[in-house]
Amino acid sequence: MFSRRLLRLTPYTAGEQPQDRRYIKLNTNENPYPPSPAIEEFLRTVDIGRLRLYPDPLALELRTIIAERYGVQADEVFVANGSDELLSFIFYAFFDGENGDLLFPEYTYSFYPVYCDFYGIPYQTIPLLPDFSVDVKAFSAVAHSSGIVFPNPNAPTGIAVPAASIHDLLDSYRSQVVAIDEAYVDFGTESALKFHGEHENLIIVRTLSKSMSLAGIRLGFSIQSPELTSSLFMVKDSFNSYPVDFLAQKIASLAFRDPGYYDSITRKIVQTREIFTASLKDLGWEVLPSKANFVFARRPGLEGEAVYERLKEKGILVRHFRKGKIKDFVRITIGTDDEMAVLLDAAKGL
Amino acid sequence: MFSRRLLRLTPYTAGEQPQDRRYIKLNTNENPYPPSPAIEEFLRTVDIGRLRLYPDPLALELRTIIAERYGVQADEVFVANGSDELLSFIFYAFFDGENGDLLFPEYTYSFYPVYCDFYGIPYQTIPLLPDFSVDVKAFSAVAHSSGIVFPNPNAPTGIAVPAASIHDLLDSYRSQVVAIDEAYVDFGTESALKFHGEHENLIIVRTLSKSMSLAGIRLGFSIQSPELTSSLFMVKDSFNSYPVDFLAQKIASLAFRDPGYYDSITRKIVQTREIFTASLKDLGWEVLPSKANFVFARRPGLEGEAVYERLKEKGILVRHFRKGKIKDFVRITIGTDDEMAVLLDAAKGL
Repeated sequence: MFSRRLLRLTPYTAGEQPQDRRYIKLNTNENPYPPSPAIEEFLRTVDIGRLRLYPDPLALELRTIIAERYGVQADEVFVANGSDELLSFIFYAFFDGENGDLLFPEYTYSFYPVYCDFYGIPYQTIPLLPDFSVDVKAFSAVAHSSGIVFPNPNAPTGIAVPAASIHDLLDSYRSQVVAIDEAYVDFGTESALKFHGEHENLIIVRTLSKSMSLAGIRLGFSIQSPELTSSLFMVKDSFNSYPVDFLAQKIASLAFRDPGYYDSITRKIVQTREIFTASLKDLGWEVLPSKANFVFARRPGLEGEAVYERLKEKGILVRHFRKGKIKDFVRITIGTDDEMAVLLDAAKGL
Repeated sequence: MFSRRLLRLTPYTAGEQPQDRRYIKLNTNENPYPPSPAIEEFLRTVDIGRLRLYPDPLALELRTIIAERYGVQADEVFVANGSDELLSFIFYAFFDGENGDLLFPEYTYSFYPVYCDFYGIPYQTIPLLPDFSVDVKAFSAVAHSSGIVFPNPNAPTGIAVPAASIHDLLDSYRSQVVAIDEAYVDFGTESALKFHGEHENLIIVRTLSKSMSLAGIRLGFSIQSPELTSSLFMVKDSFNSYPVDFLAQKIASLAFRDPGYYDSITRKIVQTREIFTASLKDLGWEVLPSKANFVFARRPGLEGEAVYERLKEKGILVRHFRKGKIKDFVRITIGTDDEMAVLLDAAKGL
């Protein structure tokens, strides 16, 4: 009864989403602050009769608002049911084995190899540099490839590469798509968006799940040339006519209209990250330099899995990856100051 | 820059969703009545702070409510971002060319061949009987096939086949998946759900977009054996960890808790359909016997495209398909009594 496709899958494992016990939840990089207050006003007054109708399949109002915000055109903006769906569409549309392997970093968002298995895309991973940063130059050194994808800042390390090195990469790599996954860019990384106009093979992927505090509505968007945008619409329209629901379109539109609120909570998270990082280092931990809303850290002498387990026993969830060079680390989301204080207390007793 | 996959796509064309001019919108089978009033109360009081968190990736509360409603277990229920996404997952998981072609009716939901192109699944269409009904016996007569999918009632004809003939099909077809798309079942068709326990290859697909008046939230579900349910989760978890957002899960749960309200609006739509059908026949139209919330009808002497165009000029949207034997027909959604009266008036002047 099962397709051959199904047999090749190794699904992605998302961070735990416990529905029972209350944890201090620092494992899936959610924002500790609520989304824009304008959303509350909207939900209090929305006409539920509108839910009987399909949403706009083009999400034109939302795409126009995003375009205005980033100084591009609406036909250069694509939206999807979370950046995970968006990445899946990108893998489908642009990456296959025709010209070589898809390239991404050895340690990165662990959904990338899952998409490759899903669509049967051959891939090659590029080792990180000794300081755990992405080796951007090594990507352009590969003779044949069908595309490049990496997050900036990278996950789960949190380390960012300078926009200038992405520019160099784009200058030397023009015939295949380069997708930069900027899920965490708002927490202090220089965006590659400025190269959008001059590089038709560049896709900038964003999500509302992190800095916009809207993981619950599932909204990702991307910015790329009109031609690549059309291709993404072709994929969407061959998969699901209406992947972005009515409420998500409206709520996301309101969020983009409230940049002041988001600037303030983002600044707060960055400030908490810097203070927390310093405190954790004071306890003897190694903390990679993060530009994200999480830090990747290890306590010398204690395995990552043990740190994860002991913190969980104390009611704090962090994320651990059982993988080669990063197995000693845990990824800790930046929560409120109070949450980080509880974590620091727990860390002292490990 | 484009994958070979992309080049083989012919996207699905959804019914128009005009965002400007106000039409009497009878083209995408939306429900004319609002969803359960309990949803309004929920949206008025929901804590928007919850939107910062990811939704439950298992949608366990919702799946449990659906399971109770239909007398099955939660591990036999799968939910997705609309039944379009769900069908796409089914095509991925269960249909390939290994054992022969996928089979579906010649005139049916026009997304099926699109999914086939999307995943590279060979297919064969089975002609309708002269009365436009699905020829269920012809499916089991095909020597080799990789699966069967059809809607009951069928779209765009609205004609249902008896559950007994699906039972006969299941008795003779046990090694591959049979997916019955019951998007419109609540408007008067006997469900194949009663065969669920005895047939492990049966999948019943449903949507909240039609009888539950929730096209705007994007929610589809299916009922099948635990083993097939696990396979659908494997596909989901290789595509998007969280395809069903927090608000959609909550709103859908509330809708399932209000069967009395939905029974009353469904009865009303069926009543309107019967009266409208009789009136249209009085005007000399041929109307296929519908068990859905739409009718498929033609006015002898006038091409379907002309009917569509002239009604659109009068501010009424219906759906027309430019295809072989059905090109003389238009598909008319059952709206309110008032909307159908306006349509009947317009039909008189065609």
